[in-house]
Amino acid sequence: MKTLRSITCLFILVLAANLSFGQNKMVVYQTDFGLKDGAVSEMKGVAMEVSPDLKLFDLTHEIPAFNDWEAAYRLEQTVKYWPSGTVFVSVVDPGVGTSRKSVVLKTKSGHFIVTPDNGTLTLIAKSLGIAELREIDESVNRRKGSEKSNTFHGRDVYSYTGARLAAGVITFEQVGPVLPPTVVSIPFQEAALEGKTIKGNIPALDVQYGNIWTNIPDTLFNQLKPKYGDMVHVVVSYKGQEKYTGDMPYTNTFGAVAQGKPLAYINSLFQVSFALNMGDFAKAYHLASGADWSVAVSLR
Amino acid sequence: MKTLRSITCLFILVLAANLSFGQNKMVVYQTDFGLKDGAVSEMKGVAMEVSPDLKLFDLTHEIPAFNDWEAAYRLEQTVKYWPSGTVFVSVVDPGVGTSRKSVVLKTKSGHFIVTPDNGTLTLIAKSLGIAELREIDESVNRRKGSEKSNTFHGRDVYSYTGARLAAGVITFEQVGPVLPPTVVSIPFQEAALEGKTIKGNIPALDVQYGNIWTNIPDTLFNQLKPKYGDMVHVVVSYKGQEKYTGDMPYTNTFGAVAQGKPLAYINSLFQVSFALNMGDFAKAYHLASGADWSVAVSLR
Amino acid sequence: MKTLRSITCLFILVLAANLSFGQNKMVVYQTDFGLKDGAVSEMKGVAMEVSPDLKLFDLTHEIPAFNDWEAAYRLEQTVKYWPSGTVFVSVVDPGVGTSRKSVVLKTKSGHFIVTPDNGTLTLIAKSLGIAELREIDESVNRRKGSEKSNTFHGRDVYSYTGARLAAGVITFEQVGPVLPPTVVSIPFQEAALEGKTIKGNIPALDVQYGNIWTNIPDTLFNQLKPKYGDMVHVVVSYKGQEKYTGDMPYTNTFGAVAQGKPLAYINSLFQVSFALNMGDFAKAYHLASGADWSVAVSLR
Repeated sequence: MKTLRSITCLFILVLAANLSFGQNKMVVYQTDFGLKDGAVSEMKGVAMEVSPDLKLFDLTHEIPAFNDWEAAYRLEQTVKYWPSGTVFVSVVDPGVGTSRKSVVLKTKSGHFIVTPDNGTLTLIAKSLGIAELREIDESVNRRKGSEKSNTFHGRDVYSYTGARLAAGVITFEQVGPVLPPTVVSIPFQEAALEGKTIKGNIPALDVQYGNIWTNIPDTLFNQLKPKYGDMVHVVVSYKGQEKYTGDMPYTNTFGAVAQGKPLAYINSLFQVSFALNMGDFAKAYHLASGADWSVAVSLR
Repeated sequence: MKTLRSITCLFILVLAANLSFGQNKMVVYQTDFGLKDGAVSEMKGVAMEVSPDLKLFDLTHEIPAFNDWEAAYRLEQTVKYWPSGTVFVSVVDPGVGTSRKSVVLKTKSGHFIVTPDNGTLTLIAKSLGIAELREIDESVNRRKGSEKSNTFHGRDVYSYTGARLAAGVITFEQVGPVLPPTVVSIPFQEAALEGKTIKGNIPALDVQYGNIWTNIPDTLFNQLKPKYGDMVHVVVSYKGQEKYTGDMPYTNTFGAVAQGKPLAYINSLFQVSFALNMGDFAKAYHLASGADWSVAVSLR
Repeated sequence: MKTLRSITCLFILVLAANLSFGQNKMVVYQTDFGLKDGAVSEMKGVAMEVSPDLKLFDLTHEIPAFNDWEAAYRLEQTVKYWPSGTVFVSVVDPGVGTSRKSVVLKTKSGHFIVTPDNGTLTLIAKSLGIAELREIDESVNRRKGSEKSNTFHGRDVYSYTGARLAAGVITFEQVGPVLPPTVVSIPFQEAALEGKTIKGNIPALDVQYGNIWTNIPDTLFNQLKPKYGDMVHVVVSYKGQEKYTGDMPYTNTFGAVAQGKPLAYINSLFQVSFALNMGDFAKAYHLASGADWSVAVSLR
């Protein structure tokens, strides 16, 4: 009986240590710092100083320098696959030293994102929803001894705050004051059906292979009633100028076309995408991604 | 006495949680996805959703796109240094969407490898031995909600199954039905003594430095009775065509030759290798690696 | 009461397991191996074989091949942000197979650095101080079965010893015999005020952005009594030859100058640095870093 009580008591202690306020002790980092110097490791060292119980992961550190659009897209791509309660620290910050706010977004799915509010939250705020947005109170949530410096917020504010939040050292409320539930957003072509054509954006490339990913969901595409084998007409534009025009079959496997031939498919995010079988579509036609790239898709 | 019992009981609980069925809660990932996008992080998120107790590691994500030979070699190089019970998830999958089988290999050393059976297991099945091979039953071992998609098996089948296996959520038997104990193999020149010449393959480069690694074990090389300082005659061929012919001393330290000069040595895998001291052998002579590259070695 | 005793006892056990001899079970790796092959993963596998309780992290694996100066700088940049007791394993080893000593440095801050003593400790020994330096006794601290090989010390000696130290399998004393408290040092221009000019070194670039970082601390720079907006005269030399001469304002934010214009600022390490706003200073003027690069700074 005593044995049972002591074990019960222990489990309660363990639970209390692990499950404070919805956070789950996981921190996932995203930056444009690359991995050639010590910056990412400094951020992680600060987190482990906050609490050695944290589990630290990486989304990517290869966001192109200052590209907050791509930062937004990588979060959109990834966050939902992590457990609710995970804290993301995203530091892509072209405006470091300017007046952009340092915030933590709590999504309706229970994920937390610690970041400068500079467009990085454009997509995730829309898809997962804003449960609450708070500004980081740097008078409290800033690494002691770092007040002198004004250039490495990533380590001294974002990683420090993310680690304290993930570890349950602070509650979400203790991050700082509530902000109105709107984030800084980068304008782009949202997916929309116009007549028999669907317009959309190229948020990102499948960089390793050069596949073109769009923001057009399969549910919208299916309104065109496509069948595997149907020919899809694709126009890609940059700031309104045509960069590629072509036709390709809609397939459910890359192997359905000859090597080097184009195809349209639904990618792992359930969005319309284009590829060359065993080739690099983006390189072959000099295409890229970002808020300025748009696409028009119709059935032949 | 009660104290002792309660601690004993606790340790049994801890053991039960940690040591189910030989797995050790470690998962090591290998892909050709690179680290520029969110794909690897999605895979890890899914694993942490399966069990927050897992410990996730990386072998490499820089396998050249679709190169299942290199995937095979990196496993061969690495797996044996990890504890028995470690689960490897290798996703280099030129045939995604085709009929290649999704399998888990249990080696005789007690390691598990979750992968498409497309040649990735060529070397490891031979060196560590096949204890049992099972096909993944995707009706059970597939992430819920992912049935619609057919292009990210890496996340929805391989990482999900690897995580469940590593965490002890499923036993090896619950992966799916047993297959005959043979894997898809890529043909290559095995190491063999022919007269006074040893033939072999260049499975990989020591990429960071450009050293040439062969599959010729020191034990076979020693049948030529080489002494440090002896001159070694080396011929490198690609699909049977000579690409390099030269002589170099056999040494046990790079410093034994002048800067920029060639040498033959035994690498950390106990295999015959060639290097330029402080230089890049592969680049200097335009050599590469793979199933099509072979080598002939003899003493002068 | 019994419950309390049993929990107390348990905590003591947990403490004993976790806090042996000042180490904290964290190991941070730095190499010039890159992440394209299995070398880093082999090192980590060996560590997990030593103890599955270790927590493994990376500083960087992208140190330019054989560049022990940069290895020294990355440690200098990073170590102090990690908790006291963390073990660093740094393997940048141009002299592998020669007579350089394999050592573990315990700094006065309580950090441990496992490395060849080849200049890698130049900066950290000075900044954090030498508490004690020990030579690794390879008759004890070498992975069993690895005695045959002489080329992968990184795995068989450094990672193995670092893991055993971090896990508390061995004490610092059990690493091997004490050495005199001096390390092999690479000569370079230390920061110094000469008349109205401060001389210094370029230890590293902020590689991702191409910013120039110097070793001149803000405290020394402040002796020139600079105000934000003051013009700074900068001369950069390589082996005594001028490579760049120019003037730029001293600012506390990149946004204080137009896009593409130069500025001087204090970086996150509190050292004088130069950048082009949204540009790459190093690339624009063909500048690099290392012991041979020096700088002279004065106010206009």
